Amino acid sequence: MRNTNNACTVEAAGASQPENGPLVSLVGAGPGDPELLTLRALRRLREADVVLYDLLVSQEILDLIPERCECICVGKRANRHMLPQEETNRMIVNKARMGLRVVRLKGGDPFMFGRGGEEMQELASEGIPCEVVPGVTAAMGAASSTGIPLTHRDHAQMVSFVTGHRKKDCDDLEWVRHLNPASTLVVYMGLGEAPRIAAELMAHGHAADTPVAAVASATTPQQEVLTTTLGALAEALQGSGLVSPVLLIIGSVVTLHADLYPLIEQAKRGMVEAA
Amino acid sequence: MRNTNNACTVEAAGASQPENGPLVSLVGAGPGDPELLTLRALRRLREADVVLYDLLVSQEILDLIPERCECICVGKRANRHMLPQEETNRMIVNKARMGLRVVRLKGGDPFMFGRGGEEMQELASEGIPCEVVPGVTAAMGAASSTGIPLTHRDHAQMVSFVTGHRKKDCDDLEWVRHLNPASTLVVYMGLGEAPRIAAELMAHGHAADTPVAAVASATTPQQEVLTTTLGALAEALQGSGLVSPVLLIIGSVVTLHADLYPLIEQAKRGMVEAA
Repeated sequence: MRNTNNACTVEAAGASQPENGPLVSLVGAGPGDPELLTLRALRRLREADVVLYDLLVSQEILDLIPERCECICVGKRANRHMLPQEETNRMIVNKARMGLRVVRLKGGDPFMFGRGGEEMQELASEGIPCEVVPGVTAAMGAASSTGIPLTHRDHAQMVSFVTGHRKKDCDDLEWVRHLNPASTLVVYMGLGEAPRIAAELMAHGHAADTPVAAVASATTPQQEVLTTTLGALAEALQGSGLVSPVLLIIGSVVTLHADLYPLIEQAKRGMVEAA
Repeated sequence: MRNTNNACTVEAAGASQPENGPLVSLVGAGPGDPELLTLRALRRLREADVVLYDLLVSQEILDLIPERCECICVGKRANRHMLPQEETNRMIVNKARMGLRVVRLKGGDPFMFGRGGEEMQELASEGIPCEVVPGVTAAMGAASSTGIPLTHRDHAQMVSFVTGHRKKDCDDLEWVRHLNPASTLVVYMGLGEAPRIAAELMAHGHAADTPVAAVASATTPQQEVLTTTLGALAEALQGSGLVSPVLLIIGSVVTLHADLYPLIEQAKRGMVEAA
């Protein structure tokens, strides 16, 4: 190491945080693979007294939390909320007020479809200090593990992210009207709404032969990738057996998968053989 | 630790990767703060024989690379490319062919405005295995460190990312036509093009009072945040003294900054005092 005195050696983490009043960390757990946690996320998990986590957080990541730490699953999965958001908010506040080191652990990044903003607003109304530890969002994880660059100077200068699960009273698929056909579109939690989204996109001028990748459980050993087209998406998903969480990547960048994914597979095999 | 046998303890990293032929890692360095590296990114840096890095990668991160490793700056900054992309591509290939463990280190995420796709295509044409280690992209870093959730159920169901630097022959600001005014827009490397982008957005129906945050050097000790409106952006930037890299966040989510940023500042002060 050039600089042995730097602040980010993970070895130094753990039990280094004396308590000075309430403090909450909203932590992004990344896309699934535990090695895609950030150094700070791991440090916060090791320091925590209590971790409130979502169902999307993998067991491998929960295994990194010290035994002494209380772990509470507060849910969030399509149609399977284990706790109403208000109760989660209240629990975070109560644990923080007890002087505990609270980590609110979310799949991906807390500020990308993670309701991190809502939880922080609750903390703001109570005057409780809060930090946010960003994470690798699912789209970047899926792009990296499937060989699909979300932007590419020859394909897409722009990328948009939307979620398949929206608030009940919001104006539904109206956003489809505003999409640049030359950009990349990523749909989070896209399995259930995929047929409707594909139909709306085509109704608003997106070509039926637009390439689509559906990526299930990105970056985990259970990862599966299906490539198809917008026109064939609904039928392809139906027969695929893919299970949530599924991320859809829509646009011409998906064509790069055929050339780039084999390099990734080859690298993985090489590393397994070398280990 | 619940599971002492897991594969992602950073302590175990380093010198564990025997060479079995050429192998390249495209690694995302994250937004700037060295603690926002992923565990895998740090592991790859510690194993590397040669690291080719961009100007956006901070000295604190370069300090994590072992002394024995060759470090080559291959540039990339607006109007200041140190090596043409083709030479960078060739150098990666040549170093890999020498049997060296090559890391191509990029600011943020390799597949988000990082030309990672182009470099991988070059490796594909040479049949060289390559893995991609995703990183926290600048937008998520800036969002987390400024208290601006990029999505929020009451503000924006969708977020789009675009870069202020585009390929010379591309159709320029045509993408502005396709933007949903109710979504969040993030412009990477936005300082130079900000006045033109603001003017185009307003010409295409975006309100002059749309909130904007300009974030310089996000997540580093040099971070600066300026909040303004689309109509006042050009003038505000001119008098601000902000220097690249600057990320623009445009949309009503920016209004959350006033409530949420104080919590982050308070948490930081608490941690400094406790240390």
